[in-house]
Order: sequence, then structure tokens, then C-alpha cells
Amino acid sequence: MILTVTLNTALDLTYAVPALVPHSSHRVSEVTERPGGKGVNVARVLSALGHDTVVTGFAGGSTGTVLRELLGALPQGPTDALVTVAGNTRRTLAVVDRSSGDTTQLNEPGPHIGAGEWAAFLGTFGDLLPRAEAVALCGSLPPGVHVGAYAELVRLARSAGVPVLLDTGGEPLRRGIAARPDLVKPNAEELAQLTGAREPLRATRDARRRGAHSVVTSLGPDGLLAVTPDGIWRAAPPAAVRGNPTGAGDSAVAGLLSALAEGLGWQDRLARAVALSTATVLAPAAGEFDREAYEDLLPRVAVEQHTPAA
Amino acid sequence: MILTVTLNTALDLTYAVPALVPHSSHRVSEVTERPGGKGVNVARVLSALGHDTVVTGFAGGSTGTVLRELLGALPQGPTDALVTVAGNTRRTLAVVDRSSGDTTQLNEPGPHIGAGEWAAFLGTFGDLLPRAEAVALCGSLPPGVHVGAYAELVRLARSAGVPVLLDTGGEPLRRGIAARPDLVKPNAEELAQLTGAREPLRATRDARRRGAHSVVTSLGPDGLLAVTPDGIWRAAPPAAVRGNPTGAGDSAVAGLLSALAEGLGWQDRLARAVALSTATVLAPAAGEFDREAYEDLLPRVAVEQHTPAA
Repeated sequence: MILTVTLNTALDLTYAVPALVPHSSHRVSEVTERPGGKGVNVARVLSALGHDTVVTGFAGGSTGTVLRELLGALPQGPTDALVTVAGNTRRTLAVVDRSSGDTTQLNEPGPHIGAGEWAAFLGTFGDLLPRAEAVALCGSLPPGVHVGAYAELVRLARSAGVPVLLDTGGEPLRRGIAARPDLVKPNAEELAQLTGAREPLRATRDARRRGAHSVVTSLGPDGLLAVTPDGIWRAAPPAAVRGNPTGAGDSAVAGLLSALAEGLGWQDRLARAVALSTATVLAPAAGEFDREAYEDLLPRVAVEQHTPAA
Repeated sequence: MILTVTLNTALDLTYAVPALVPHSSHRVSEVTERPGGKGVNVARVLSALGHDTVVTGFAGGSTGTVLRELLGALPQGPTDALVTVAGNTRRTLAVVDRSSGDTTQLNEPGPHIGAGEWAAFLGTFGDLLPRAEAVALCGSLPPGVHVGAYAELVRLARSAGVPVLLDTGGEPLRRGIAARPDLVKPNAEELAQLTGAREPLRATRDARRRGAHSVVTSLGPDGLLAVTPDGIWRAAPPAAVRGNPTGAGDSAVAGLLSALAEGLGWQDRLARAVALSTATVLAPAAGEFDREAYEDLLPRVAVEQHTPAA
């Protein structure tokens, strides 16, 4: 199975309003709720691709209960191995302005995680690792979790011989990358914050020198840039697409993990990641992927190797 | 006891953000949750004044459970006689911009109420009425409840000999007022919509002719205008105040009901209503009232009778 870790899970709310006007009152015309947090999104895509997938991390309070109910109601959804905490799982709210199509995002900080709760999580993580073909560590840290948490989890995964992917930003990324994860997947912004470099190839190489075996940088609509022990690769969709980029990065992570778990090489990993993230931009619902578009795109993703080795 | 009806209860969320910028992403720095809906707010104030108070209406789903937990946790709070429904109680969200102090409001529509749920509510309402000294019918109707619902409840209260106050707007007010409630409390906007008249005295008299025994119009910072069988009254705070007007109208309703239940006349009813709503504007937390300010203001509210009879 593939394990995804979401320490700061979220109940993702979407409100549709005719137009968002600050300092006025709005009737919300449509409300949707979905289970969220980066690792939960990754797990949903992996499950939809047919992988046996387990989600862990934290959930608590009434919002945590709703998140778990929604997760449990997904057809062929991931297995819930979330650790129950005393605090309330955070909500994230996307307010969609129907007139402009723009989205305004409001993210709650998340519950405070106590020392006992972190210890309980480490127990669960340790129990799940031996069965995992790969593990993904995704998203922000909730209050109370130490900033070196991802570094600690990377070391545990590596000790257990399980390939580990890290997708986070800021100081947790800086600390985590030094613990030598197999793969990190920053976006251009996270990479620039980490390395100070703006030019993608230079920044990606710099990130790799900080400890990751491979770095796959997402370049938004331009696809992915991978710096790996086997060479440098660029992968791009066959044509630019318009749509909602929410969840595209999580779908790319799912594509990389899916191909990794099947023992496929970089060509296939990157093709799958680009096809899935493009099919996510094209899907009508935020964070879902359009399966037909995915199957159509997969053989048409352009993957080019630039040099034989990094 | 005093009974308040809130057919569209709400879990009121407040998010504080440094500044609300449409089409951008925000970290919410502070989240507060309180039990809401107009009749619930009225009941909270009545309870704080020492009245035995019961709330009924609808609550359901995970948000309904949280609302009831928060209501139950209030010290000397109202008694919960809400009817459980299948749908989710709505959330209302107030986004407070810390830089400007402005509030942006987003209100969910509320759950669909089925015919069986409405019948269950009528049963509860009928059971509670004989014990009520007064009843307040407050706020919007959730989807599925017929537009003549308040007219039906006004008739039931009048048949039971219980004084009934109606505080709503739009078509439910138009229908409800025709069923001859003892008191309606529109604001200037609701009144203009009902009568087409903008001049407060003319509009208030017009509203009264539509069936209400008495009409008390809230004029915002200028206080209240009452057209009653005993005369026309104006009541105003001793000085203009600055603060958050959220809940000021609900506090005015609580003041009117409180004095009515104690058998006091218009002078005292209006003084109490103006002092409470002004003390609500002055309170640091939205929808609460500042008790010291209330006690200070009460003897200083200017209540003037304009004519001996309407």
C-alpha cells in the first residue's frame, strides 16, 4: 500500500457567491464540503487510480468527524488511519466569485497538537511503515508540532527502507530536506524561498544539494523539472489548458508515487504526474481529476532528458 | 417562561484576518464559534437578564450538534427545545478585516426542512405555548418552510392567548403581519420593503394598518419609533455611540419582550430596548451586551410620547 501523511488535515468548504464585495453581506448560493489537506488529496487520486492507499495524520472535533465521514463515504476511497486529537480539525474556505471566476481563500490555522498526540501519531506511523511501498509527507504543520517533524518522519521511513516523498514549504521543508528524503516536490515559490534562486534549474539543483536524492519542481502550466541521480528531465503537457489549478500539485505527487510504487522509471513517473495534474486543472470540481482527459493526455506528455546525469 | 423561535438557527463563525483581499489567500488569525440565529440571540440576552427562556426551531447535522453544545455550555443559558432535522444547520461567517475594522458577511442558506419536520416542530411549539408568557418569532425561513409559516405560528400563539412578537422581513413579514401579531419590530429597510414608504412615521403607521397591534421600528443609532394603541413614542440613546451593531436589533427585541413579560408599559419597554441595543453596540464581542453600560444607560434613555393615540 501507499501511505500519505497529512498532519494538518482540513474540512475544505467551497462557497459560491454571485460576487464577493468586501464589507457587504452575501447569501451563499452553493455550499460544498470535501475532505482535504494535501496528503488526503494525494490519497484520493491514488485510490482513484486503483492503489491500495492509507491516510494518516490528525483529525479531531466536529469538523474532524465530518472529514472522516466524507472520507469513509468515498467509493474505493483510501483507508482512514488518522489519529484522533482533542482539538478541532481546521476548515479551509474557498469563496468562488461567480461573476469573475476568482477564488478567495481563507485558511484556519488548525488545532494545537499536544505532546501525547504527537507520540500517538509516531506509534501509528511506525505500525504502518512496514506495509508501505512508499510514503508521502504533505502540507503544513499544525500548531504544536515541532518544526523538525518532517525530518524525523523522513529518518523513520528511510530506516524502514520505505521511499519517502516530501511536499511542504518553509522551515519544515528546509529541515526535512536535510534528512535526505528520496524525493521533494516544491513549486517555484517554495523553491525560491528555500534556495534564494529564481532560475528553476539552478534552484532545483541547489535544493538537491541540500540533501534530497531527487527534486521535482512544478512549474505550473509549464509542467515539471526533475533533477535526479539518473539525469535531468523536463515534462510538459501537450498544450496549455485553462481551468482551476487547485489540487494540481497534489495530483502531480500522486502521479509520481503511483509510478514509483509500480517500479516505473522517471519517464513514466513524470508523464503520469503531468497528465494527472493537467487533468485536475481541466476537471469541473476543484481537486478532482478528469479521468478521460488523463487517459487522453498520458501518451501525449512530452518528457525530454536534458543530460545523462545531474 | 419566554419562548423564542428560530427556524433558521446558525452556527456563527467569525474569522479575523489582517486584511481581506479578494482573489488572494488568507491565514485566519482567530476563529470564534457561537450559537446564532436571531431568536437564539434574543434568548441569550433574555437569559442574561434573568428570564426563564426556551429556544425552539430546528437544528441538525454536525453544525447543529456544535450549536447545541455551545448553547448548553452557556452559564444560565436558555433551555434547548430545538427540533432535530436531517439537514445541516447553516453556518454564517463574519470575516473581520483587522486593518479597516470592516466586516464581510457570508450566510449559508440553511437546510431543507421536510413536511414531517415541520409537523414535528408544530407539535413542539404547541406543547410549549401554554407555559409561555410571550413568544418571539425571529429571522429568515429555511428552504422548504412555507412562506406563510409565521402567519400560522402567530395564529397559534393568539389562539393560546400568548403575546407574540414577529421580527422578520420580506414576504414572511407581509404574510405574518396580516395574522395580527401583538408586535412587529422591523428595521427601516424591512419597513420600506413592506410599505413602499421611506418616511419612518408614515411607514410605521402603514405597517400597523396591515394588521399588527403595535409596530416598533428600529432607526439604527437614532433609537426606536413605536406606533401603538396607547400612542406614538420615540426612544433614543442619550448620545451616539460607536461600535459593532451586530445583534443590536436582537437585543432590542429582548428588551421589549423582557419588559412585556414583566407587565411594564411602553415607556419601560422602549427604554429597556434602547439601553440593551446600545449596550450591544458598545460590547467588545459581536452580539454580546455590556451589562455595566446597560445599567448606566437605562435611566438615561429619552422616551417621548408624541400623541395620545395612534
